[in-house]
Amino acid sequence: MIRFYNGKVLTCADGDWKVHSDYEVRVDMDRIVYVGSKDEKKRTEADREIDLHGNLLMPGFKDAHTHSPMTFLRSYADDLPLQEWLYQQVFPMEDQLTPELIYEFTKLAILEYLTSGITASFDMYVEPEANALANVKMGFRTVLCGTLNDFKDSIPALEGFYKKFNQYHPLISYQLGFHAEYTTSESLLKDLAALANEYQAPVYTHLSETEKEVAECRMRYGKSPVKLLHDLGMWNYGGGGFHGVHVSEEDLEILASYVTYESIGSVQMKKKSPVYIVTNPASNAKLASGIAPITEYIKRGIPLAIGTDGPASNNALNMFREMYLATVLAKLRDQDASSCPAEKVLYMATVGGAKAMGLHNCDCIAEGKQADLIVIDLQQPNMQPEHNIVKNLVYSGSKQNVKLTMIAGKILYEDGVFQVGEEPEAIYERINQLVKRIKTKVEGF
Amino acid sequence: MIRFYNGKVLTCADGDWKVHSDYEVRVDMDRIVYVGSKDEKKRTEADREIDLHGNLLMPGFKDAHTHSPMTFLRSYADDLPLQEWLYQQVFPMEDQLTPELIYEFTKLAILEYLTSGITASFDMYVEPEANALANVKMGFRTVLCGTLNDFKDSIPALEGFYKKFNQYHPLISYQLGFHAEYTTSESLLKDLAALANEYQAPVYTHLSETEKEVAECRMRYGKSPVKLLHDLGMWNYGGGGFHGVHVSEEDLEILASYVTYESIGSVQMKKKSPVYIVTNPASNAKLASGIAPITEYIKRGIPLAIGTDGPASNNALNMFREMYLATVLAKLRDQDASSCPAEKVLYMATVGGAKAMGLHNCDCIAEGKQADLIVIDLQQPNMQPEHNIVKNLVYSGSKQNVKLTMIAGKILYEDGVFQVGEEPEAIYERINQLVKRIKTKVEGF
Repeated sequence: MIRFYNGKVLTCADGDWKVHSDYEVRVDMDRIVYVGSKDEKKRTEADREIDLHGNLLMPGFKDAHTHSPMTFLRSYADDLPLQEWLYQQVFPMEDQLTPELIYEFTKLAILEYLTSGITASFDMYVEPEANALANVKMGFRTVLCGTLNDFKDSIPALEGFYKKFNQYHPLISYQLGFHAEYTTSESLLKDLAALANEYQAPVYTHLSETEKEVAECRMRYGKSPVKLLHDLGMWNYGGGGFHGVHVSEEDLEILASYVTYESIGSVQMKKKSPVYIVTNPASNAKLASGIAPITEYIKRGIPLAIGTDGPASNNALNMFREMYLATVLAKLRDQDASSCPAEKVLYMATVGGAKAMGLHNCDCIAEGKQADLIVIDLQQPNMQPEHNIVKNLVYSGSKQNVKLTMIAGKILYEDGVFQVGEEPEAIYERINQLVKRIKTKVEGF
Repeated sequence: MIRFYNGKVLTCADGDWKVHSDYEVRVDMDRIVYVGSKDEKKRTEADREIDLHGNLLMPGFKDAHTHSPMTFLRSYADDLPLQEWLYQQVFPMEDQLTPELIYEFTKLAILEYLTSGITASFDMYVEPEANALANVKMGFRTVLCGTLNDFKDSIPALEGFYKKFNQYHPLISYQLGFHAEYTTSESLLKDLAALANEYQAPVYTHLSETEKEVAECRMRYGKSPVKLLHDLGMWNYGGGGFHGVHVSEEDLEILASYVTYESIGSVQMKKKSPVYIVTNPASNAKLASGIAPITEYIKRGIPLAIGTDGPASNNALNMFREMYLATVLAKLRDQDASSCPAEKVLYMATVGGAKAMGLHNCDCIAEGKQADLIVIDLQQPNMQPEHNIVKNLVYSGSKQNVKLTMIAGKILYEDGVFQVGEEPEAIYERINQLVKRIKTKVEGF
């Protein structure tokens, strides 16, 4: 049992954030067992008492779209046009990857998530076993996302992953997914839709990231990627689209149709499982893909989450940066400083992300939920004065404010020190060696 | 004498960044006295030997446009339309300010600059004495900027400030400035131009921040703010414009004319002192003002610097965020992922800023320069692997990487601990009390 006391606790009921100055939180094993006012009589039960010194306990951030192993490409190729970046720099390097390398590079990403207060990733990459192993080894929570396409994996492989990784370890789960419309044939998409319907499972994919992608889909199918997937019945059990930058009015209507309610007699019934849009503002800006129409999604009740995308295109796994960008880019796009307020952004980065990933028990601070928590240092100049803690988090918060990161009741990062079973310096050294070896191979040809 | 050794040193010659793995740096009093390879024979002279453990010593960031005392409004009013924000929220609170309050609120900003690796501010606010005192008290370097307008200060007052604060203390200097075209009458602008010409001094102002401002200037004068100031001879000795978001082709030509060179016989002579554009990407995005045409400035050789703007509109004083935004917003604006590369952004945030503020001796790491330095922790996941340290700084760097901040040879911040003559917690407590008092007054009416 761990007891957090003498601080502030951020709760969220129905999207309303509330800061409780008088609460304490208790964690037993992997769960939150008490959230409420100070309870002196049970005080002695705790194995560890953590004095928050007035700091803030809040739910961990959820990185709802990433490619963790791509840490090895951070700052390898930047400031290049998109096609050149992808075909001349990224792909030749990725060709060299092995499961062993993916295992190592994922570890580096996990260290970075922890420093950013991220407690779960929605990780889309090949070789899910290597990825899962790294997460289990370090105690990090991940939802693996399928990457099916014409060149890699198959329907049976995906089905196998789906069954295997949803039974693998409490920290690991798996969602069906494919890379993108432009890399996946129509027949494969149909087979995937059939699989999703068989398992009553949601499906996730890269969706309408660039203008080019949408234009080419329209050439191929006479419709947008959103309409295509909708017509194929891909989202009969919900799912999500990563990016969602270039969508039409029709696309918005389709996505909104997944969140409509209908009345059966006097009962309001949820009609379908929603299709989430996971925005990746830093990546979309850095690769000059555009600004997602966040306000349009919000208006229609289309649920949102935030991802960092991979470190090759971002280049950091920093949820504070993403939150700031999500709101200020919406303000720029709408030419309206009141667009996409801080409270909504924080919801996207925490509760919204958890829901989008299917982590319904990791979304907020409440009794019975998984203990995926962080402590934010408010005793820093950027968090002062305390007019409004939620706005401070979104508009002036930084990784420097992350004092502690706990996943499933285990403290993995505290005051700059990692507790992940391995020294970070050893990981850095190994990774630099591995990267050097890959570079020599690729650049030597 | 302080000796930094066993790390990397980032130097900049003619805009080319270079990482030296084998260098050491020595600081004596307020100056850098040695930059070069390890020199064992002089080793015993140092009062303190700082083992960098492979980390990076680099020039401090320069915040080339800010309003430090506005820390008291951080997260007080966000997510509001611009006019409502300014007139209903910011102005009534600012009306309550006294020199004593400005002194306290400036201190909070200084703490934040130090955590962000910022070693000097270009600070535009009323009551320069209170501001100067806070900076001297804490050991921070600032260039005070005039705020002349129709409602505050006068030509004699500005002249007095100019003479006083350029003789005040080694950490303090002063530049002539006025608030903006739209708050300053033509006759006052003419008088200021005369003063600038008398003192052969540059002049700084808020310039073409919003579309509205430019449109109204055109209504008033039949020309843009840039053309107006140019025609008034305001920049005969150079100066700068803060923001520079909405400029025309003609404006760009005018600004470029201040950096052209002309041949007299065989000698290339600098024609004029340049007019700097100080971009404030976070503020411009958050207030939905627009994206400055950075690439257009770069193309024409118009010199650039970066500012945070005040914490009421940003809301943080974080140069890592500004650098990232400066480049990715340029990429979005140009629809080109190769726009505004990392090396140029880093130059703007360091050397460019120093030059824009007139701090020609604080720009980089070289013998004889002021020791305004920072140490960046590379032993963090976001700075690994080390493909390219400059790109890592701009694309994945964060405040968390700032290990040490030194100004004029004095270490003011090291491993999270401030050495500014006062405990930060005492400052936070006092500021929250003062803010509460102001709020009660304003909101009580």
